[in-house]
Amino acid sequence: MDHPDIDSLLRDVAEGRLTVADAARLLRATPEVAIGYATVDTHRRLRQGHNEVVYGETKTAEQIVGIVEVLSTHERPILVTRVSPETAADVARSIPMQYHAEARALTRFGEKVDYLDAGFVAIVTAGTSDLPIAEEARVTADILGLRTESFYDIGVAGIHRLLSRAPRIASASAVIVIAGMEGALPSVLGGLVEKPVIAVPASVGYGTGLGGFTALFSMLASCASGVTVVNIDNGFGAAYAAYRILRSHATSR
Amino acid sequence: MDHPDIDSLLRDVAEGRLTVADAARLLRATPEVAIGYATVDTHRRLRQGHNEVVYGETKTAEQIVGIVEVLSTHERPILVTRVSPETAADVARSIPMQYHAEARALTRFGEKVDYLDAGFVAIVTAGTSDLPIAEEARVTADILGLRTESFYDIGVAGIHRLLSRAPRIASASAVIVIAGMEGALPSVLGGLVEKPVIAVPASVGYGTGLGGFTALFSMLASCASGVTVVNIDNGFGAAYAAYRILRSHATSR
Amino acid sequence: MDHPDIDSLLRDVAEGRLTVADAARLLRATPEVAIGYATVDTHRRLRQGHNEVVYGETKTAEQIVGIVEVLSTHERPILVTRVSPETAADVARSIPMQYHAEARALTRFGEKVDYLDAGFVAIVTAGTSDLPIAEEARVTADILGLRTESFYDIGVAGIHRLLSRAPRIASASAVIVIAGMEGALPSVLGGLVEKPVIAVPASVGYGTGLGGFTALFSMLASCASGVTVVNIDNGFGAAYAAYRILRSHATSR
Amino acid sequence: MDHPDIDSLLRDVAEGRLTVADAARLLRATPEVAIGYATVDTHRRLRQGHNEVVYGETKTAEQIVGIVEVLSTHERPILVTRVSPETAADVARSIPMQYHAEARALTRFGEKVDYLDAGFVAIVTAGTSDLPIAEEARVTADILGLRTESFYDIGVAGIHRLLSRAPRIASASAVIVIAGMEGALPSVLGGLVEKPVIAVPASVGYGTGLGGFTALFSMLASCASGVTVVNIDNGFGAAYAAYRILRSHATSR
Amino acid sequence: MDHPDIDSLLRDVAEGRLTVADAARLLRATPEVAIGYATVDTHRRLRQGHNEVVYGETKTAEQIVGIVEVLSTHERPILVTRVSPETAADVARSIPMQYHAEARALTRFGEKVDYLDAGFVAIVTAGTSDLPIAEEARVTADILGLRTESFYDIGVAGIHRLLSRAPRIASASAVIVIAGMEGALPSVLGGLVEKPVIAVPASVGYGTGLGGFTALFSMLASCASGVTVVNIDNGFGAAYAAYRILRSHATSR
Amino acid sequence: MDHPDIDSLLRDVAEGRLTVADAARLLRATPEVAIGYATVDTHRRLRQGHNEVVYGETKTAEQIVGIVEVLSTHERPILVTRVSPETAADVARSIPMQYHAEARALTRFGEKVDYLDAGFVAIVTAGTSDLPIAEEARVTADILGLRTESFYDIGVAGIHRLLSRAPRIASASAVIVIAGMEGALPSVLGGLVEKPVIAVPASVGYGTGLGGFTALFSMLASCASGVTVVNIDNGFGAAYAAYRILRSHATSR
Amino acid sequence: MDHPDIDSLLRDVAEGRLTVADAARLLRATPEVAIGYATVDTHRRLRQGHNEVVYGETKTAEQIVGIVEVLSTHERPILVTRVSPETAADVARSIPMQYHAEARALTRFGEKVDYLDAGFVAIVTAGTSDLPIAEEARVTADILGLRTESFYDIGVAGIHRLLSRAPRIASASAVIVIAGMEGALPSVLGGLVEKPVIAVPASVGYGTGLGGFTALFSMLASCASGVTVVNIDNGFGAAYAAYRILRSHATSR
Amino acid sequence: MDHPDIDSLLRDVAEGRLTVADAARLLRATPEVAIGYATVDTHRRLRQGHNEVVYGETKTAEQIVGIVEVLSTHERPILVTRVSPETAADVARSIPMQYHAEARALTRFGEKVDYLDAGFVAIVTAGTSDLPIAEEARVTADILGLRTESFYDIGVAGIHRLLSRAPRIASASAVIVIAGMEGALPSVLGGLVEKPVIAVPASVGYGTGLGGFTALFSMLASCASGVTVVNIDNGFGAAYAAYRILRSHATSR
Repeated sequence: MDHPDIDSLLRDVAEGRLTVADAARLLRATPEVAIGYATVDTHRRLRQGHNEVVYGETKTAEQIVGIVEVLSTHERPILVTRVSPETAADVARSIPMQYHAEARALTRFGEKVDYLDAGFVAIVTAGTSDLPIAEEARVTADILGLRTESFYDIGVAGIHRLLSRAPRIASASAVIVIAGMEGALPSVLGGLVEKPVIAVPASVGYGTGLGGFTALFSMLASCASGVTVVNIDNGFGAAYAAYRILRSHATSR
Repeated sequence: MDHPDIDSLLRDVAEGRLTVADAARLLRATPEVAIGYATVDTHRRLRQGHNEVVYGETKTAEQIVGIVEVLSTHERPILVTRVSPETAADVARSIPMQYHAEARALTRFGEKVDYLDAGFVAIVTAGTSDLPIAEEARVTADILGLRTESFYDIGVAGIHRLLSRAPRIASASAVIVIAGMEGALPSVLGGLVEKPVIAVPASVGYGTGLGGFTALFSMLASCASGVTVVNIDNGFGAAYAAYRILRSHATSR
Repeated sequence: MDHPDIDSLLRDVAEGRLTVADAARLLRATPEVAIGYATVDTHRRLRQGHNEVVYGETKTAEQIVGIVEVLSTHERPILVTRVSPETAADVARSIPMQYHAEARALTRFGEKVDYLDAGFVAIVTAGTSDLPIAEEARVTADILGLRTESFYDIGVAGIHRLLSRAPRIASASAVIVIAGMEGALPSVLGGLVEKPVIAVPASVGYGTGLGGFTALFSMLASCASGVTVVNIDNGFGAAYAAYRILRSHATSR
Repeated sequence: MDHPDIDSLLRDVAEGRLTVADAARLLRATPEVAIGYATVDTHRRLRQGHNEVVYGETKTAEQIVGIVEVLSTHERPILVTRVSPETAADVARSIPMQYHAEARALTRFGEKVDYLDAGFVAIVTAGTSDLPIAEEARVTADILGLRTESFYDIGVAGIHRLLSRAPRIASASAVIVIAGMEGALPSVLGGLVEKPVIAVPASVGYGTGLGGFTALFSMLASCASGVTVVNIDNGFGAAYAAYRILRSHATSR
Repeated sequence: MDHPDIDSLLRDVAEGRLTVADAARLLRATPEVAIGYATVDTHRRLRQGHNEVVYGETKTAEQIVGIVEVLSTHERPILVTRVSPETAADVARSIPMQYHAEARALTRFGEKVDYLDAGFVAIVTAGTSDLPIAEEARVTADILGLRTESFYDIGVAGIHRLLSRAPRIASASAVIVIAGMEGALPSVLGGLVEKPVIAVPASVGYGTGLGGFTALFSMLASCASGVTVVNIDNGFGAAYAAYRILRSHATSR
Repeated sequence: MDHPDIDSLLRDVAEGRLTVADAARLLRATPEVAIGYATVDTHRRLRQGHNEVVYGETKTAEQIVGIVEVLSTHERPILVTRVSPETAADVARSIPMQYHAEARALTRFGEKVDYLDAGFVAIVTAGTSDLPIAEEARVTADILGLRTESFYDIGVAGIHRLLSRAPRIASASAVIVIAGMEGALPSVLGGLVEKPVIAVPASVGYGTGLGGFTALFSMLASCASGVTVVNIDNGFGAAYAAYRILRSHATSR
Repeated sequence: MDHPDIDSLLRDVAEGRLTVADAARLLRATPEVAIGYATVDTHRRLRQGHNEVVYGETKTAEQIVGIVEVLSTHERPILVTRVSPETAADVARSIPMQYHAEARALTRFGEKVDYLDAGFVAIVTAGTSDLPIAEEARVTADILGLRTESFYDIGVAGIHRLLSRAPRIASASAVIVIAGMEGALPSVLGGLVEKPVIAVPASVGYGTGLGGFTALFSMLASCASGVTVVNIDNGFGAAYAAYRILRSHATSR
Repeated sequence: MDHPDIDSLLRDVAEGRLTVADAARLLRATPEVAIGYATVDTHRRLRQGHNEVVYGETKTAEQIVGIVEVLSTHERPILVTRVSPETAADVARSIPMQYHAEARALTRFGEKVDYLDAGFVAIVTAGTSDLPIAEEARVTADILGLRTESFYDIGVAGIHRLLSRAPRIASASAVIVIAGMEGALPSVLGGLVEKPVIAVPASVGYGTGLGGFTALFSMLASCASGVTVVNIDNGFGAAYAAYRILRSHATSR
């Protein structure tokens, strides 16, 4: 019996090909590898269709190396987010990984990337300062097998810059929009395109920008219908949300 | 030349079948009908693929009747959200519309509903108090041509209730999850299913529930990757976000 | 010696035509009329160029009548803001004043309005719900002798509605922009016109609209340069700020 | 046909001298120069009457040099705000620009400054700590062609210091008032002068000063009518708002 | 042995006339009268020099009557604060007490008021809306034996009104200043007078007034040295703080 | 007469074996040792059953050494929390203490630890980043004589990891649950086990995690009944709360 | 095989008497009764040792009656919290339940209450206004089989009232402390008693009491070690937390 | 004519010995010395009875030296608050001043301190961490001529430490109470002593201490009547408030 991911497993349960108890046993077998400071989940691909992404912010180079080594035995793309240049350099001394300075991410592509056959994701930013988030989204999308196109620095104060790109953006399968300060871009863009719009508030700015909260609240209160939002600066999360959408496209064909 | 919606129009521009100037003229022709208190946008279907949804919260019965009458000339489904029972009764005296008490919404289906061929949307709630939001989402989905299935009152404090429904939820094309108080449900569900998860914080509760803000912040900070969020109590917005996803599915086939 | 307003008085001081001590005596003569619950300032025109505007929110009908009677002896336009329909009706039983229901304001034009020769003020709103604020601004502008033009319900989610009105708005002497929820309109408009833009956040909305604070913070953090902001729902203040600008125009000719 | 700025272009449209389509073509010609990390807008003078001001906070010296080089081809004054001394020194190694340490700004005056014939802007501060903001406003005003006069350290706790300067301040065309902590100065000054008052909250202070938010909220809630406010520490924005006002004066003559 | 108040008792302890154990016994004798819903403290005059003041906000008329009856056996002035007109009327049916409508307080003077020989308290308000707080302070001061003088409606936007009253205010023994919105009055007044200044933020206002919090934070961040603050709308607390000061004066003579 | 702790002393009072006055004298004898910067309380064991725990955050190495020396004369376990590695090294130069780097705590066990006979405390964390708090709790528990078991990195996004550990966790006498970001773990765990659950919000995370406040509010608003909460990052407090519970168990046997 | 509650079931799993799969099957059998608006959990006693407590705040009388009827088939005590007098009267017309007006709770004792053999819970309040919360805690404790003693209105401003009750409070098995405004009582009491202290912030008060948040934050930041806290006004939660503690006592004997 | 301070000047005005115009001339003569970055007010003693206190936080050593040199010509005590050790060392190289490291203050006593004949000020702290604030208050009091006594580290969790000091504290003329975290000390102390109580919230602590805001809000919401509060960490302000009280005592004799 083959269960490439949790969906098919659950479908088997739903359609009687697998008992709940057996499914539970499969799921609870907990193929984790305990390495002291972490419980690495090597079966995540079973449950979520890809390897574990490591949140690097609070981890030391040693911890990252340890976790990546466990994950590496499974020969799949690996992503570590929120890694400082110093930590990245330390990691690189132990294992070969590529560092994306702008995105502050480490990657390792274990095999040829297998892009999803589901169009592309448009990544749009309001200003130059939003670049790091956009790049984190782009690198994450890449590791998840999504094609992307970037549209940077086209905020609403110069509306013509946005209008001239709108047709190409509207042809994407999903749109990631990153904006700080007042976060108005998703409202305008959400009115121009019909595709899923995932807004990412950026913490850049000062004063009433509230470290990204004003953009966050603006995006959630957007007058454009059906715009969804992820956490402040969460380029990774936006790309992952796009992955959920495009993968669903791809499998529904 | 036929432009059923803004996407095709923009694609024509992008591929040279339509000049930018002509597109601008089409767009700026502003087929609005000014009725004093509102600028009703009768061409919205051109730009967004459906009739205008009316936000009823701050409008009088007279204003709603006026706007619906303008929209009615186009023979399409109409939805008015956030309508109190009193206002609904007043509207009903002038024009025939169906009132959904739990959802606090008025609808009018001008023709046979044309459901999108793109699976169904799972609508999940943590508790009984989340019902009004879930119903607003359900009615909105209906008007937009989305099939739905409801999974109510399966919060995380009784985890077994959730686990037993997970397989069916995982077979949806998109999942709307509504939860108040601590808003933990999308985190657990986001780890169990791979499909797009749209979380709606509910304002129900007291004290540190902060009128829905704790659920909102929890959902945005969710440890489950790629969960997206809409405004507090915004059942309409969640359904609309699902519509953006499923319509994209349907058209990409 | 004639001092139509405080500016000329202070200019006389600055240029030696009046001693500081004499100016102080003039200013401190405090031509107030004490009527128990208020110290009515009948010389305000000397100091600010117009009669006192009464903030009616916390005042009873009796108090309003009393204050208006004192002010009336000076035969000038009078404005009472934030008056409920009930209080307005009570006031009307004692003294003849015109009630503007949408603006919730009482006015009395003691003589022919003397409009400033300084162009017009554009009053722009994002949605229908912003009407009461726009009307408060319009009535206030009227009492202060400013001509106005209204551009209602042209929010950014339907950008074409805004673009088609931009040329006329750009020909105003000052632009008042009212928007709730995410408050994006001043950012877009501020990039399209060069004139002074006064943004008014509206408290309308729910959830992350934060009762107008999200719009307020958005407007202050606007990516459009030099947009200024007044308090939430403060249509009166916006009109008064416009008055400061246009009066300065008129007198500088 | 000559369009020195967007106003005249739009006026031509409004008065039939230019079709909307042609105007759209002009506007959408998007004379941007893409240099990778930014989309530099060399036609901004067409649309906003002056060169682009560069927000330097999050930019590297290399990025600033790159952008300034593109802008320099147009021989106009250039302003880069929020530049640290270190970055300024790095920039100076590549291109000749003047650094204003107090204002933390870089400038380059390409030709003789062409001051607007519209009086002067009074720049008033409550305390010594507000100096950097005042200087940012002064340098910005300078680059925009506005004359200024400074009135520093005259807060309300020593009311006589303020009263003795009031006559000269009242003769300005617009007044910029900078204050931190409780932000009371604009309320007192707004009652003394009739000219446009632009208040800037300063982040200086501690405890209940809330990093400038108390001053911000105080200024917005000011009992003096028609005081307008910009973002915390936004000396640039205040000067730009004054520019909108004085330029409107100058052109209306 | 006679201990008219806790100070003399503690002084006896400090100077060896009373052992700590005996003092503890005196204090702990807890002359409370339990009446079910409250533990009425009839010895408070021993410990605090006056009868208990009853906070009426959350109490029913029956509870107030019950507590007052217990307190009445001691023949001293009684004050009940925050009593609605309805509750006051209900109380009046059972026991004779005077209702102060503006102050929303009930009083009963059991004997001739014995005013402290320590000058007077100046009660200053910025606007008409601050009256209820000022009156609560005035009635409380009266019950505590403090003479008062009122200076109402002299906010900073009309600075001359304040300056002309400053000499008389400066001759008070303590100054209570009540202001809402931006709360600037204590800053100006604190710079003009040297006496103790007790500031009371008022909840009146809207938007950025934040229900009194902006005034509160402004007053605490005041640039005038040594201004102290009590809770929002707490006229009672301000009068009690003045009582602590004047009583200390009176006893120190 | 022997009073090993305050409970027995108070019981003696309650049952007439000790007068209140004598108890007061015992309590007030204040066996403190004043060492200038602190009033060290050497009788705390009388009142609270153990030596004083020193909060090290704001103390210098010299102050810590001084306080520990006073406490050391009583030969009991000593704990200093929140000590940086640098300060710990400085302290170690003067007195022998063990430094727990992960927990940032210094300990000194003066005698064989005397574990309470009351089962064990389960210490559960949602992620790797919660380790420092968990270790502070573990070290504190140790010093207080509580046995512990650790269950690290079993957050709700991988629900199977939690379910497989639930049986062992449910056999603890009290459960400490540490979680950051959305803080959902106590809600799920609180529904699975019946034992006292003490939740500790972790400040780890970014954006809407609000430095631990979202986890805090989530835990307080938990849909699982009777979950209690301590301050953000307060591993010490959680262990101490567990101590109150287990000690009560132990003595009630 | 008998599993009176989830603990024994999980213990069987841990000790090999029950397979995980069988346990899962037992747990997932989901003995819920779906009644449309709710999924009533009739096996909760299996998992949590008692019947479901119904949160009545957002439920109609009809919903409450329906849920209670399902629960009633199991002949156990039932508690419905947060029921208004009106709703309670409506419920009483359909099924016999006792209404506790002060606690706003409905109860039904299906059999003789079976009190836990584990001492008593002390319920302490700072003021009269905290009564409703205290009563909700008392009624909840009663339904859960806990004995209680009440100590009302002994706040810290009259410290002697607290000191004289301390001995009796210290003899409880757990202490629930309810306080509003500044919430200081748990800090003082936590220093006087060694038993588990569960603090409940009360929303009573005004201004800086912040609707209970100041008390909440104070209690969490308490200088007394190991005080735990529940949500604002959550008398039910405090009693349930006490139940977790005392039940653990009772079963550990 | 001699006016040692503003009070006597204003009294002369009030009693007709001085015209308003002459008083205005005196006040407006503005005996300031402009030194570029500051407007030093050498007549402040006239208006406020003492030399200017310099807030050093945002000033450079050079600026401090410059201001002190201007002030020094008047031979009076000088205080500079919030000076870092580095800046203090720099200042000391130019002019002789005493640095108080704990208080972070620079002083210069130009002549023998002239203590007010008005008792002493009690300075009370809850913990060791509050020392810097207490010392700032002590040094400020000293420069203003107030005698002080310190009572450090007697927080409410060990209530006996507080009770044993209460008698001495109660004999002060004013009490300054400093507390962080939950800020409960002023509530307990305010109930024990009748003298003016000035509470200072301390920013020390973490989590729900909110950087001093919880203590601030607690103190303002204190159940002890008439406690007044100054800004967070504002030891200077508390001492100045005490000065206003004691000076009023001294002059009223």
